[in-house]
Amino acid sequence: MHEDNITSWFAAQSNADASAFPIGIGDDMAQIRAGADGTLLVTTDMLLDGTHFDLSVCTLEEACYKAMAASLSDCAAMATIPVCAVVAVALPTDFGADELRRIHAGVVDAGQRFGCELIGGDITKWKENAESFAINVTMLSKPSGHHPPVRRSGAQVGDIICVTGPLGGSLHGKHLHFTPRVAEALVLTKAATIHAMMDITDGLVTDLNRICTQSGVGALLEAAQLPISEAAKKTDDPMTAVFYDGEDFELLFTLSPAEYKKIKDLDDVTVLPVGKITDSGKIQNRLTDGRIVDVPAGGYDHLGN
Amino acid sequence: MHEDNITSWFAAQSNADASAFPIGIGDDMAQIRAGADGTLLVTTDMLLDGTHFDLSVCTLEEACYKAMAASLSDCAAMATIPVCAVVAVALPTDFGADELRRIHAGVVDAGQRFGCELIGGDITKWKENAESFAINVTMLSKPSGHHPPVRRSGAQVGDIICVTGPLGGSLHGKHLHFTPRVAEALVLTKAATIHAMMDITDGLVTDLNRICTQSGVGALLEAAQLPISEAAKKTDDPMTAVFYDGEDFELLFTLSPAEYKKIKDLDDVTVLPVGKITDSGKIQNRLTDGRIVDVPAGGYDHLGN
Repeated sequence: MHEDNITSWFAAQSNADASAFPIGIGDDMAQIRAGADGTLLVTTDMLLDGTHFDLSVCTLEEACYKAMAASLSDCAAMATIPVCAVVAVALPTDFGADELRRIHAGVVDAGQRFGCELIGGDITKWKENAESFAINVTMLSKPSGHHPPVRRSGAQVGDIICVTGPLGGSLHGKHLHFTPRVAEALVLTKAATIHAMMDITDGLVTDLNRICTQSGVGALLEAAQLPISEAAKKTDDPMTAVFYDGEDFELLFTLSPAEYKKIKDLDDVTVLPVGKITDSGKIQNRLTDGRIVDVPAGGYDHLGN
Repeated sequence: MHEDNITSWFAAQSNADASAFPIGIGDDMAQIRAGADGTLLVTTDMLLDGTHFDLSVCTLEEACYKAMAASLSDCAAMATIPVCAVVAVALPTDFGADELRRIHAGVVDAGQRFGCELIGGDITKWKENAESFAINVTMLSKPSGHHPPVRRSGAQVGDIICVTGPLGGSLHGKHLHFTPRVAEALVLTKAATIHAMMDITDGLVTDLNRICTQSGVGALLEAAQLPISEAAKKTDDPMTAVFYDGEDFELLFTLSPAEYKKIKDLDDVTVLPVGKITDSGKIQNRLTDGRIVDVPAGGYDHLGN
């Protein structure tokens, strides 16, 4: 199959929201139209077999669902509305039309849940020297209109730190099937002013440390409040799993105590307070016996060093 | 180095046009602002070691220049103005900070020539199972304002077919160092109405066949007018090189004879007429002895089938 056929086929099979975003099919670029003020947000992420998923134990559909869902989670992280995506794949030499259909199915499965149109792509193939599947998703989103895109840098001393679900142990299965918190982020930012937010991809402590560093603040976690996932409970050290396991894809956000009251009992969103923003400049944890201990940042290093 | 550091460093080192496009650094998405009418065009392309370049005989800088230049060539193909790019890379396990600097240098070298800002990216690493470098460029561009983005589907019977430079033999060196025809495309579309255009990536005949198929027309090439590159002249069969060699990255476009007169003597752009659009529904070639022969479409198959 030629690239043009695949690209057209990708585009032709994408969902029916094209009227909102005039799209040229089969040209060198896909065309979109930004929102009222022209602001768009863009994220790009490459996921690799053996690093982000393992095709010897998961399906192509799951891997490609995850790739798309991870980008949707980036939209959630800033409380923006997903608009469209372009997807590029690098195929092992033995992949053919059947594998392409499965790739497409995984991508569209995730995208359609959030009205995120697949508007174009690129298919390329390794030579014999490499046999590993790679998928790159670039996603565009737009501001919600009711809240500016939420940055990581806005946390303030006294803020309550919240997450949207239990943490830890995602690699035991959740990381392939998680629901990106797109809807939750929009509900939260409609109900309250959020100071800082991101999605937890590299572990609670590592990602909280990013918010703290970029905001010039510290944080005090409350051990008694930390939500331990069922998967984490099955590990030897659940608290370490909660702190450092990656790919939870839950939202991590901070807001003032007054704003917190507006969201703590929402029907549609799980809001779990886990601590407070402090002026300590570091991440600390209050143990159940009352002692306060420092928590090393640690976490996932993308260069593996 | 953590992803945040790399991303910030990528962004921090990109060129100084940030004021035109408010950009959030270190967040989950980069922010841009579209042009007056909100229209943006997007292209994504994955380039692989061993397929699109060979790091055993070229430098990382050259490979990454090529990746960025290929996307800039997509902007040229539609006569749009490059705005910004996000770049994701998959690194072999032994790559470190030095390789990242060289990747960045190649990307920025190409981008800066056309005011195309690097606004974000993603760095990821293979596990031991794979050792091949991959780079994905997603580029956004905007309409020029003086001519709508040029599609492939607008060729009309009687149009003159032109290219912007000699063809064939690109893989002997040009493919790593070509100049994307961004400026030329803007000059051409300012001077005349272009009916159909693309950049030649898979060979003159294959790409001309795309224009013809999408436009519902045919084409008659004139063998005597075909511009043979110096590299093609050194091959055993220069005409086959002109017809089928990929990665020339010259523009291929069609326009009416009246419009052609407006651009045939431009100072800044090489305009080489190579034939005419016909109603034959196929690609033909008029040999120097006057005989007309059919030309098989052929060309590069991205799935290698």
